[in-house]
Amino acid sequence: MKPVFRQTQLYTFLLYTNGKGLEKKILDLGAGGNLPPLAIFNDQGYETYGIDISDEQIQRAKEFEKKQGISLNIMKGDMTQLPFDNDAMPYIYSYNSIFHMSKKEIGEAIKEIHRVLSVGGLAFLNFPTINDAHATHGEKVGEGEYLQEEYGEKVLHSYFDIEEPEKLYFEGFEVIYKENRIRNGFMRDGTRVTRGFVDYILEKK
Amino acid sequence: MKPVFRQTQLYTFLLYTNGKGLEKKILDLGAGGNLPPLAIFNDQGYETYGIDISDEQIQRAKEFEKKQGISLNIMKGDMTQLPFDNDAMPYIYSYNSIFHMSKKEIGEAIKEIHRVLSVGGLAFLNFPTINDAHATHGEKVGEGEYLQEEYGEKVLHSYFDIEEPEKLYFEGFEVIYKENRIRNGFMRDGTRVTRGFVDYILEKK
Repeated sequence: MKPVFRQTQLYTFLLYTNGKGLEKKILDLGAGGNLPPLAIFNDQGYETYGIDISDEQIQRAKEFEKKQGISLNIMKGDMTQLPFDNDAMPYIYSYNSIFHMSKKEIGEAIKEIHRVLSVGGLAFLNFPTINDAHATHGEKVGEGEYLQEEYGEKVLHSYFDIEEPEKLYFEGFEVIYKENRIRNGFMRDGTRVTRGFVDYILEKK
Repeated sequence: MKPVFRQTQLYTFLLYTNGKGLEKKILDLGAGGNLPPLAIFNDQGYETYGIDISDEQIQRAKEFEKKQGISLNIMKGDMTQLPFDNDAMPYIYSYNSIFHMSKKEIGEAIKEIHRVLSVGGLAFLNFPTINDAHATHGEKVGEGEYLQEEYGEKVLHSYFDIEEPEKLYFEGFEVIYKENRIRNGFMRDGTRVTRGFVDYILEKK
C-alpha cells in the first residue's frame, strides 16, 4: 500500500502543476525526512530533485527511498544558493521549511527560486502566521523571528502577517493561489493547539 | 497512473482514520461524480460505501469505477434517512455536499450520521462560511440560505458563521479538528474568487 503523506497541501500544488502542463520536473527545498513528499510527484511521473541542509534528514529520506524502491535525487544544499541553472525548473516548492530562516534569508531563498524557475513556472510556499499559538513563543531575535525549542534544539521560526509575504518577497511573481488557514487540532504529541498558516502558489512572470 | 483528486482535505481525514485504527470501513454522503473520492480510501484498503441523491452523479461514478476496475458500492439514497443500522460505520464523511440542503435538513443529516457512526468513530464535514464571496449571492430563502444558479439549475447553498456549526449541530460529538480556510484563487472557469470554508473532524462520544 502507498504511504499516506502528511503534507496534504502539496496535493493542491499537484493539481496546479498537472493543470499547467509544463515539463514534469520538480524541485523540493527542504526535501528530506522520513516521508519525503517528492514521492507524491514521483508517483505521478515527475522527474524529482531535492535539497536539504541536514545530513540526518537526507539519510531518513534515503531509507524511505530504499524501502519504496524509488530514487528522488535529494542532495545536500542551501536554499539561499541553489545548485541549479537559471530557468532550469518548471516547478519548485518548499513545504514547512523556508520559515526556519530569518526574514532576510527567506528573501534570498525566494530570489533564488525566482532565478531557477522557468518563465511561467510555479512555486508553492507556506508560512506560519500571527494566528499561530506559537507566534510569539521562545526567544525573540528579530521582528516576528523567534528561537524555539524543537526536539531539544533551538530552531529559528519566522512568523508573518497575512499580507506580509507578498509585501516582502513576491516581486516578479504573480500570486495565483493563496489560502489563509487557521487549524485547531492535536499535535503529534497529543496536545491541542491552534496553528496558523498561509499557503501560496506563485507564477514566475 | 493514479487519478489526482480535487478533494485534498480528505487526505487529512485519511490521516485521522488511519491513526484511529478502527475497522477500515467508510461511508461517503454525496459520493457520486466523475472523481469519487471513496477511491482514495479504496486504494488504502478500506471497505467503501456511498450514497448520492442524484442518478446522474451515481452514473458518473460508475463510469470512473469501470475505468479504474474498482467497486465503491455507491447507491441512491438521502442523507437525512441513512439506509444503515445504528453504530454500523466507524468512519463517515460528506465533502462539499451537506450544505446543499437547508440548515434544518443539515441538522437531520448530522443526527443520522451520529446514529450510524460507531462510538469513537470519526466524521468529516465541511461548510462554506460567511467569508465566501458567494455567501449572499442568489435568492435568499432563509437565514444564510440562498438559491444559486449552478450549471443552469437553482441549487440551495447554506452558509455559516465560523462558530455556527458547533452551536447548531454537534451534540454528542467532540470536535477533534477544525480548520477555517480562506482561499483566493481561480475557479475551474478561470474567474478569480475568494472561497471560505470550515472543515471539521468529529468523534462520536
